[in-house]
Amino acid sequence: MATSGKVIRCRAAVAWAAGKSLSVEEIEVAPPKAREVRVKIVASGICHTDEHVLGGTFPVVEFPVIPGHEGAGIVESTGERSDLCETRDKVILFGIPQCGECIFCKKSRLQLLPEITVSLFSPTLSGSLQRETDPHYLWNSTFAEYTVVPEFTLAKIDAAAPLDKVCVLACGFPTGYGAAINTAKVKPGSTCAVFGLGGASRIIAIDINKDKFAKAKEMGATECINPKDFKKPIQQVLTEMTGHGVDYSFEVVGTTDTLIAALASCNMNTGVCVLVGVTPAGSTAPIDPFLLLSGRTCKGSLIGGWKMRDSVPKLVASYLEKKFNSDLLITHTLPFAQINEGFELLRAGKR
Amino acid sequence: MATSGKVIRCRAAVAWAAGKSLSVEEIEVAPPKAREVRVKIVASGICHTDEHVLGGTFPVVEFPVIPGHEGAGIVESTGERSDLCETRDKVILFGIPQCGECIFCKKSRLQLLPEITVSLFSPTLSGSLQRETDPHYLWNSTFAEYTVVPEFTLAKIDAAAPLDKVCVLACGFPTGYGAAINTAKVKPGSTCAVFGLGGASRIIAIDINKDKFAKAKEMGATECINPKDFKKPIQQVLTEMTGHGVDYSFEVVGTTDTLIAALASCNMNTGVCVLVGVTPAGSTAPIDPFLLLSGRTCKGSLIGGWKMRDSVPKLVASYLEKKFNSDLLITHTLPFAQINEGFELLRAGKR
Repeated sequence: MATSGKVIRCRAAVAWAAGKSLSVEEIEVAPPKAREVRVKIVASGICHTDEHVLGGTFPVVEFPVIPGHEGAGIVESTGERSDLCETRDKVILFGIPQCGECIFCKKSRLQLLPEITVSLFSPTLSGSLQRETDPHYLWNSTFAEYTVVPEFTLAKIDAAAPLDKVCVLACGFPTGYGAAINTAKVKPGSTCAVFGLGGASRIIAIDINKDKFAKAKEMGATECINPKDFKKPIQQVLTEMTGHGVDYSFEVVGTTDTLIAALASCNMNTGVCVLVGVTPAGSTAPIDPFLLLSGRTCKGSLIGGWKMRDSVPKLVASYLEKKFNSDLLITHTLPFAQINEGFELLRAGKR
Repeated sequence: MATSGKVIRCRAAVAWAAGKSLSVEEIEVAPPKAREVRVKIVASGICHTDEHVLGGTFPVVEFPVIPGHEGAGIVESTGERSDLCETRDKVILFGIPQCGECIFCKKSRLQLLPEITVSLFSPTLSGSLQRETDPHYLWNSTFAEYTVVPEFTLAKIDAAAPLDKVCVLACGFPTGYGAAINTAKVKPGSTCAVFGLGGASRIIAIDINKDKFAKAKEMGATECINPKDFKKPIQQVLTEMTGHGVDYSFEVVGTTDTLIAALASCNMNTGVCVLVGVTPAGSTAPIDPFLLLSGRTCKGSLIGGWKMRDSVPKLVASYLEKKFNSDLLITHTLPFAQINEGFELLRAGKR
C-alpha cells in the first residue's frame, strides 16, 4: 500500500565537483513514485568507491552528486506498487540491485543488471532527490538523511538488527566475504593472499600499512607482509613463500599494479585471482597474456557476487546469530556533520 | 628394457636465426639416455607457435633451434629406465609434458609443470640432438627425422592409428576442443564466439579471412562474421547479436587486440573468455579492469588443459571410433623437404 506524502526537507552531503570536500546542506526529497521507497537513513558506511567519486575517478558520474551506497535505515513511506517493504521496516540499501526479472537475476550468478551498464553510473534515476539536477548515485545516495530508491535496491531485514552495525553488510563485508566464498570458491586447505586490507583477509595479508596487521590477524590472517620490507617484487616473495604461488589471490586495493601482482602471485596451473578493488576510471592493466595462458584465472567480484535482495536478510540473520563478526570492520563512528573527517580517516589509511 | 644404440645421422629443419627460413640439413641424433626415448618422426603438424619461434617472438628460444611440437612417430630405441613405451610402438609427442609426479600432475588440472617455467622455453634439455648447441625445443623438436625426448613428453597410442592424421592430436585439435570442454566447460544451450579459426569453432566464428568460413561451418559453426564487414567494434556487434554478449568467447588468434575484443564480447555477469592463442613474447594486453569487475572471467588454456600422457591415447581411441573428425583440420600434406612451403601457407592464412 502506497504511503507516500509530501516533500521532505533534510540534510545531505553533496559533492559539487571533483576534488572538493562534501558540502552538508539542505535538499528536498520528493515522495516515492511507483515501485520506489523513501528511507530515513540511520547509518551509512564510507566505501573507497565513494572516495573515487569525490576524486572524479569513478566512471560517468556527473556532478553534483550525493554519494553513499552502504546504508541502513527505516522505511518512511512507499510509492504505488511498492510491495517489498512497508513503513517502519528496517532496510539495508545496496548499490548493486537485484530486479528479479532479468535473465541474470534468474541465473545463479549476478553481478550487474544488464540495463545498468549505463544507468548505474549516471544520476538520472528518478528525479526523486529534487535539486537543479538529480544527484542520485548507484541507485542509493545514502549520504542524506532521507533518500528515495527503487524497491529492488533495498532489502527488509530483521527488526532486531542494529542499523549502525549492519550497514557494513551493504557493501564492505559481503564484498570480501563473497569474493572468497562465491567468486573464488576457496577450498579448505588452500593458500590465499589478500592484497590490501580493506576487505576480508585470509592467511597471507599484504599491505603497505602495518597498522592494519593486528586487525587482519584478528580477522583470520595467519601472516602479514609489507611489500616495502622486500626488494623483490611481492609476487616473487609470495611464490617463494608458497612454493608455486598461492591458490587464490584477492586484489582489494584498486590499482592496476596490485592487480598484476595478485595475478602473478597465484600459481600458474590452478591459481585464481579475484579483482575486488575498484580501479580509477580509465585505468588499464597491462597484463602479460602468458600469466593467463599458463593456467591462471582472473575474475572480478562486485559486492562479492551476492544476489543482494536475497542475501542481505540472510547475512543480517547470520550476524545476529554471531556467525561472523563484521563489527571488526567498523573503525570509527562519526556524526553526519563530520562526514568529511570520515574521508580524511579513509585517506590516511586508518579505515 | 633399454635398446639404445648408435648415433643416427638424419635430416632436420633448423632455424638458425629469427626471420630466416628453416634450413633442412643433416644432424646427428644421439642415443637416448636414461628415461629418454628416440623416435622416428613420421608426421608433424605446423603450429602457429612454431611460426612465433621462426619470427623470434616466442619467449626465451635460443637459436639455432629445431622447432616442431605436433609429432607422431615410431619408437626407434629407449634409454635406461624408460618403461612407458617400447621399440616399434606408435607414439605421439607433445609440448606440454606430464611428469606424473609433481603436485600439479596429481591435481585435476594441469597446464604446465612447475619446473618448466624456465626449461620449457630453453633448448637445454639433454644434449641429445648433438650440434654445437642443443637445439631442443618444447621437449620435442619434431621437425627432424629422428628426435630424442624425455619419456614423459610422449604417449603410446593404438597401433591402428594413422600417424599422418593423428599428429594433430598432439596440439591443434586438443587445444581447441579442450579449451571448450575442459577450460571453459561450455554448457549445452550456451552461446560461444571463436576469434580466429585456427582451432575449434562453435556457433559464432570470427575471422578476417572469409576463406575459412566454409570449413568453420563444416566443423560446427552456425554463423561466421568478418570484423572487416562492420564499422563498429566486433565486441559491440557480438553483444548486439546475442543481447548481452556471449556466454563463452575463445581467443585463438594470439593478439592482444583480439584478447580484449573476446573479453568484451562475453556477457558481464557470467561470461568466460578463454585465451588460447599464444601472443608474441613481451606482449601486454591493456585490459580495462572493469571488464573483469563486472563479472567476466578470463582464463588461459594451453593445449586445452589436458593431461597429455593420460589423454592422448584416449583422444586417439575416440578418433578411431570416429567420435570426432580431426582430419578436417588437415588442409595440406607436404613432404619434409617442403617444410618452408608449409609455413608460407600458414602465413597466407590458408592453413
